[in-house]
Amino acid sequence: MTSNTSPGAVDPAVREELARLRDSIDNIDAAVVHMLAERFKCTQQVGHLKARHQLPPADPAREARQIARLRTLAENAKLDPAFAEKFLNFIIAEVIRHHERIADDKTNGAAPAADASGPGE
Amino acid sequence: MTSNTSPGAVDPAVREELARLRDSIDNIDAAVVHMLAERFKCTQQVGHLKARHQLPPADPAREARQIARLRTLAENAKLDPAFAEKFLNFIIAEVIRHHERIADDKTNGAAPAADASGPGE
Repeated sequence: MTSNTSPGAVDPAVREELARLRDSIDNIDAAVVHMLAERFKCTQQVGHLKARHQLPPADPAREARQIARLRTLAENAKLDPAFAEKFLNFIIAEVIRHHERIADDKTNGAAPAADASGPGE
Repeated sequence: MTSNTSPGAVDPAVREELARLRDSIDNIDAAVVHMLAERFKCTQQVGHLKARHQLPPADPAREARQIARLRTLAENAKLDPAFAEKFLNFIIAEVIRHHERIADDKTNGAAPAADASGPGE
């Protein structure tokens, strides 16, 4: 596909191809947002479970396994493994933020703490 | 479910529930890693398309639409919209890193630049 229009204008075929790719990106982003919503529901349940049964909040062995596994999955999917690890750390930071908010709620007399889950889970 | 074991030990039912939740988290993480691998394939194609047809790399209107859309999707999925926006920015940072690497490759006489896609696309 080559551009055969005047400068400034965009070949309709190119415009169409760009729209097609952007539609895929939008679909993927929607899927990921929904997956992450489910993930946070899971980590919240883990938090409540651990708080209820006095389990230690952090589990470094579990976290190390998660990182190693995600790096391998990323490699197989031709995604930079370092990015997969950064991604997990990004999510962990958000889980910690959730737990801090829940801990604050607890201090203010709200629902029981769910801040006992390991950050990544 | 209550803990009825001695201190230090963990009720097998609790251990099982924790394992069940962690399995879900692992499944979700695997799904997201694969979705992100697909996303980067799309942004790379966009980059090549834009470079080939002299389209401007950035499209602020497109990015604004992406942010607004993701925030709405997040709200509907009961995910913090601010987190959804942070997530998009996190991905954008990685896309920029990809483009910089491709630009470096180009400087060193490698493949044609794919650094013309808008960072988020």
